[in-house]
Amino acid sequence: MGKAIYEKNDIKLDNYNLLVDEALFHNANGYIGVRSAFEEGYPENFKTIRGEYINGFYDFTQTEQAENIYGLVHEKQTMLNVADTQSIDIYFDDEKFSIFEGTVLKSKRWVDMDKGITGRFVSWRSPKGKEVEIKVIRMASFYQLSLFTIEYQIKPINFSGDVMIESNHNGNVKNFFDPHDPRNADESFQYLTPESCYIQYGASYINSHTSKSGLEVCSCVKNFLSGESERQFIINESNAQCQMSTIAQPGKKIKLIKYAVFADSLRVENCKVTAASEMKKALSVSLQELYKHQEDYLAEYWENSYVEIQGDNELDMALKYNLFQLIQSVSKDEYGNIAPKGLSGEGYEGQYFWDSEMYIQPFFTITNPEITKSLIAYRYEILDKAKENAKLLGHKKGALYPWRTIMGKECSGYFPAGSAQYHINGDIAYSIIAYYLATKDLDFIQEKGAEIIFETARLWMDVGNFYNGQFHINDVTGPDEYTCIVNNNYYTNALAQYNLQWAVKLYFQMRKLPEFRKMQKRIKLSYEEITEFKKAAEQMYLPYDEKLKINPQDDSFLQKKHWDIDTIPKKNFPLLLHYHPLHLYRYQVCKQPDTILAHFILEDSQPQEVIRNSFAYYEKITTHDSSLSRCIFSISASRLGLEDKAFKYFGDSTKLDLMDLHKNTKDGIHTANIGGNYMAIIYGFGGLRIKESGIYFAPILPKKWTGYRFRICFENRRIIVGITKDHCTFFIESGEPIAINVYKKEYLLDGKLTIHRKKTLRRED
Amino acid sequence: MGKAIYEKNDIKLDNYNLLVDEALFHNANGYIGVRSAFEEGYPENFKTIRGEYINGFYDFTQTEQAENIYGLVHEKQTMLNVADTQSIDIYFDDEKFSIFEGTVLKSKRWVDMDKGITGRFVSWRSPKGKEVEIKVIRMASFYQLSLFTIEYQIKPINFSGDVMIESNHNGNVKNFFDPHDPRNADESFQYLTPESCYIQYGASYINSHTSKSGLEVCSCVKNFLSGESERQFIINESNAQCQMSTIAQPGKKIKLIKYAVFADSLRVENCKVTAASEMKKALSVSLQELYKHQEDYLAEYWENSYVEIQGDNELDMALKYNLFQLIQSVSKDEYGNIAPKGLSGEGYEGQYFWDSEMYIQPFFTITNPEITKSLIAYRYEILDKAKENAKLLGHKKGALYPWRTIMGKECSGYFPAGSAQYHINGDIAYSIIAYYLATKDLDFIQEKGAEIIFETARLWMDVGNFYNGQFHINDVTGPDEYTCIVNNNYYTNALAQYNLQWAVKLYFQMRKLPEFRKMQKRIKLSYEEITEFKKAAEQMYLPYDEKLKINPQDDSFLQKKHWDIDTIPKKNFPLLLHYHPLHLYRYQVCKQPDTILAHFILEDSQPQEVIRNSFAYYEKITTHDSSLSRCIFSISASRLGLEDKAFKYFGDSTKLDLMDLHKNTKDGIHTANIGGNYMAIIYGFGGLRIKESGIYFAPILPKKWTGYRFRICFENRRIIVGITKDHCTFFIESGEPIAINVYKKEYLLDGKLTIHRKKTLRRED
Repeated sequence: MGKAIYEKNDIKLDNYNLLVDEALFHNANGYIGVRSAFEEGYPENFKTIRGEYINGFYDFTQTEQAENIYGLVHEKQTMLNVADTQSIDIYFDDEKFSIFEGTVLKSKRWVDMDKGITGRFVSWRSPKGKEVEIKVIRMASFYQLSLFTIEYQIKPINFSGDVMIESNHNGNVKNFFDPHDPRNADESFQYLTPESCYIQYGASYINSHTSKSGLEVCSCVKNFLSGESERQFIINESNAQCQMSTIAQPGKKIKLIKYAVFADSLRVENCKVTAASEMKKALSVSLQELYKHQEDYLAEYWENSYVEIQGDNELDMALKYNLFQLIQSVSKDEYGNIAPKGLSGEGYEGQYFWDSEMYIQPFFTITNPEITKSLIAYRYEILDKAKENAKLLGHKKGALYPWRTIMGKECSGYFPAGSAQYHINGDIAYSIIAYYLATKDLDFIQEKGAEIIFETARLWMDVGNFYNGQFHINDVTGPDEYTCIVNNNYYTNALAQYNLQWAVKLYFQMRKLPEFRKMQKRIKLSYEEITEFKKAAEQMYLPYDEKLKINPQDDSFLQKKHWDIDTIPKKNFPLLLHYHPLHLYRYQVCKQPDTILAHFILEDSQPQEVIRNSFAYYEKITTHDSSLSRCIFSISASRLGLEDKAFKYFGDSTKLDLMDLHKNTKDGIHTANIGGNYMAIIYGFGGLRIKESGIYFAPILPKKWTGYRFRICFENRRIIVGITKDHCTFFIESGEPIAINVYKKEYLLDGKLTIHRKKTLRRED
Repeated sequence: MGKAIYEKNDIKLDNYNLLVDEALFHNANGYIGVRSAFEEGYPENFKTIRGEYINGFYDFTQTEQAENIYGLVHEKQTMLNVADTQSIDIYFDDEKFSIFEGTVLKSKRWVDMDKGITGRFVSWRSPKGKEVEIKVIRMASFYQLSLFTIEYQIKPINFSGDVMIESNHNGNVKNFFDPHDPRNADESFQYLTPESCYIQYGASYINSHTSKSGLEVCSCVKNFLSGESERQFIINESNAQCQMSTIAQPGKKIKLIKYAVFADSLRVENCKVTAASEMKKALSVSLQELYKHQEDYLAEYWENSYVEIQGDNELDMALKYNLFQLIQSVSKDEYGNIAPKGLSGEGYEGQYFWDSEMYIQPFFTITNPEITKSLIAYRYEILDKAKENAKLLGHKKGALYPWRTIMGKECSGYFPAGSAQYHINGDIAYSIIAYYLATKDLDFIQEKGAEIIFETARLWMDVGNFYNGQFHINDVTGPDEYTCIVNNNYYTNALAQYNLQWAVKLYFQMRKLPEFRKMQKRIKLSYEEITEFKKAAEQMYLPYDEKLKINPQDDSFLQKKHWDIDTIPKKNFPLLLHYHPLHLYRYQVCKQPDTILAHFILEDSQPQEVIRNSFAYYEKITTHDSSLSRCIFSISASRLGLEDKAFKYFGDSTKLDLMDLHKNTKDGIHTANIGGNYMAIIYGFGGLRIKESGIYFAPILPKKWTGYRFRICFENRRIIVGITKDHCTFFIESGEPIAINVYKKEYLLDGKLTIHRKKTLRRED
């Protein structure tokens, strides 16, 4: 699978590209994330988002509302930039190393997706003529999540003399503040205050606390320099600098290893003690062994996540790069989740959205289900907060998950496109069911999943009402934020129906299990409620237009005005930055395809004809102003046999970050787009569906490709799927034989199965 | 008509009541307003909203939005507190006069509605035993709008000695800031900066400028003390104190007259020069003559506004108090309008709303039409700003009046219950047509009114769209803010239809007039547009439910949940302070009766049966959380022959301010409630309607009353209407004979007409 290295040569030194590279080459392991700023910094007038982040580690920040309306959000959470451990300054005699001075003879940066490291190489001639080669390897360890390492190699070429190294550990940090970017609305406030800074056993410690959330973080840094001749520490209350000296000799490598570990009070009792023990653990093996562990971890990850595009190497590499970002970004415990920018930047303030469940989790569910479990555990962790949120919005029962959050409280300041997106409840329920269908892990459902499904189901009963024999859900916002606060959003209602159906199913499936009964008692779930769930699900109103034979996005969508997208000036996209919400709400125009997404994930709820008509209808009016849009069109086009369209929509978006297509990769990589892209291959081209009735495939092959292969994990089986020009092969690597459905025909998969690939596909046929 | 004096004895000295009295006894003339704080102030720990305001004189204030959404309001306007000219401190030897010390032997405050003055009388014994009577008369002159006077009389009873008077003129002022009141969201920022303070010809001048709006105001104060022995001024950059001495002798009155005038750069070129000439003008006649002018002005006002309730003196007095507040509050020029709190407080920041057109203007239109003209002229003045506002909201043509404003730019921070209230366009058009129907003043319509009607009509064409052969208006908010951003709000559509119909009518009526043709050319109004107006008006979609035979408030109102108002705990009203908007939007619950209001003002657009059914339907679900609600129910109940209900809804609301029923009179009096109350008598009980086809009456008599009489002005005629137990009499005081319609029968009114009063009334009969 894929080329293991993404490499950039002749690094551009303009500020914009440096910011993009900070994100592209960041190191993360789901716990810590470190943006790849240069250790030695940039010129003074350059902006840098020089951040190190801990997943889920936040402070509360104030947010003003223009009018004092009941229940609006006045306090958000923001992921904090914690201590800077990446700074290293080098002096060759009186010359400070900086590639903004002197001459760069050669430079490159890379990410090695197999080794789990990033690298930088510079061949540099100082203004006074000293030539030196510098190579830096960085790693955020998957083996030890608290650990970030920098291996800094200096090779003097044509000189000898004193080398002085200042390795900094700086607790005086702020979040990045760019007043011109609406997505980073924070003020430049120091949320994190260092309260102690000390040296212990040769390591520096900085312990800081947050301004309002009552959290604490301790970072510990230790430096090892080969041939070290002298060392001293210069410390103040927020900063520890380790000054080391050595001697340069032509051709002789000097090596500095800098270990940094973090401990935070979300996860541990005593941060200082934990930081010390984590540092001890890190130093208990060699750096080479740590690299080996990293490689082993990733070897397993790549095996699980195997996907290979044949005939398009560049795409294949980009895909590998992307999936590497997912494992870098996703939390490995229940205190965090996966943010839209992962741990690579401060966009969206590190909060978690529906992106997790609907775009990213599907990848993990069929490749690394343990991670999905952890993501669901996070939602379980904040279930009480979701119940409080439901109360705040006037609901008498149930849980309403916040639209954006870190610790469980709502962070969306503009509720019509935020808190009103009740579909997040359905999204979370859907993703739990998807986990269950792919794993049949009833224990976990019993332990955590079912309770979420019941509490979200309860909420639908409170938000909706029966009217004329149908169950209506009024005044919510669907995923498409270009129409807000609508009645009977198709997507929302379809997911609510699914949520309710599964609450009923799980109840009957598990009602006799003792653990389940305990939970049922605890949450006071009555049989009458189940009956109501059933009734509401059966009578759920799903908008349908007889004339057009499509599902309208909501009750009144079709009576809105038409707006020919082709007539809108290019500079006016994305529309949300150029038109008042009321204007957008009044048109049949979509940021992303609400109904098409529902048709993808719940395809059996509508006849193929309706799905086909809807695709054609919404395609014309969708602007794709959201990076979550095109992948869904691609998947649906595959389903409908529109192979060229499917590939067109799939298009370049695999390279969205690598090519900075949205011009905001500097704020962080796009995790949901990556997940959507993966889905476009597996669910789209591969036609994978996992339903209660079994597992389905209906592969197509993009014309540009010679083939593709992927591995999935299904009910503890590992299955390899390969598509070539003429054949589809299925191979069961481990686990019991199983019936699979390919092109609507059932086969027993026991070993290897080869089927002729259908060349044209109209799914309704 | 009515008792001329509203009086309060034994003034309560607790802080809350003092704040209420500041509003109740404030002096205003539509240009300046002065809250009645004590001249000598309160104890230090007391709050005071010690304000002096100029109608329409504002500064820009920042308002934060939680998310950076395109087009939201970031800058509001707030009416400024200008220089304090009401401070007077009195020292009897070493004792400072303060009724919070010593003993109050007697105290009272009053408003004399005939004389146009307020008074305060205190009989006081100082801690050391000095007895003194103090009487203060204050006036905001209608004769000279720039002028506010204080006549301060001191009568020493049992002592003699030195009296020192410090009369202050203080430019160091801020707006009131109460962080606990959502309606006063301003920060405590000094918007007004004094730039010069000087003495000239014995008067002090303070000239100040605003922080952002580029406006300037100059105040000038001059003091005259009887028996003055010594005088000196103590001034600094923002404050001028005039210290005067005299001698107290038992029984001998000491009199101080303090004149204050204001000039502002909205209205005059040079504020300092104007302030000086206004002071000169004020001093060119005696105070007694100024009082006489005031009385003359009000005599005419009371004659025009004559309304008398027989059999309920208290109500009659309250009514007179209320109408006095209207003439105090309403601007006499096009630079101001009438704010919800008039000039009596800072509630709603002195901005103007639809209250003007729909609740207050109807009173002026039929009693003092020149004032309505001025209110319309204000809307004409800000027409260009309304066009800019339309552009901001994405409209390609027309004008969209801001929901709340001072100088024409939108001030509503929360657009779903603000800018989305497009009905304000219809309200303004309706009020202009009402003015036209009552006056037939085609000159003014040609000069200003018609252009507004065309530009608002144009907007409807851009906001709405034809769908299935009907004209729809989507995504607007009606007057009832408990459901926001809805499709086809009945009220909005009905008014839009009326707006469009009249645009067509006026076009055909005036198209040959030369002035009209000039305007038509200037605004590029084409015949094709008129044709479109006509088509949209004819095809306007007005929601109607076949089953219930009512007009639903909007397309989806009836599918919303029911909420039995009786089950809601009392403490949870008003609902908007206790429930999230999304919760409210999801229920059939009304803050005020949208559709009922439309049925009142456009009663011929629906059959009586639909109006009756709608009344019954909405009555059950309306909370009257708005002070604009009950009066409309009262009017409609009168119309439907529900006499007891009509009187019940009319109820105590005439005393809303006098009895501080809403517990917020401290923030200012409620001008729209006053207007609504007046309408409940004239349009409700009296059944007055002025239509294109003529003038209609259908009087009923509340059981508690023995009769009532009122005068209206109609097409330059003055008509007195009197209702007694058995008769209705109509008397034409001036003007040509005219046909009037009483109880659906036409009569020629030429002199006096007496008709038997109908005892029961079902209007559809």
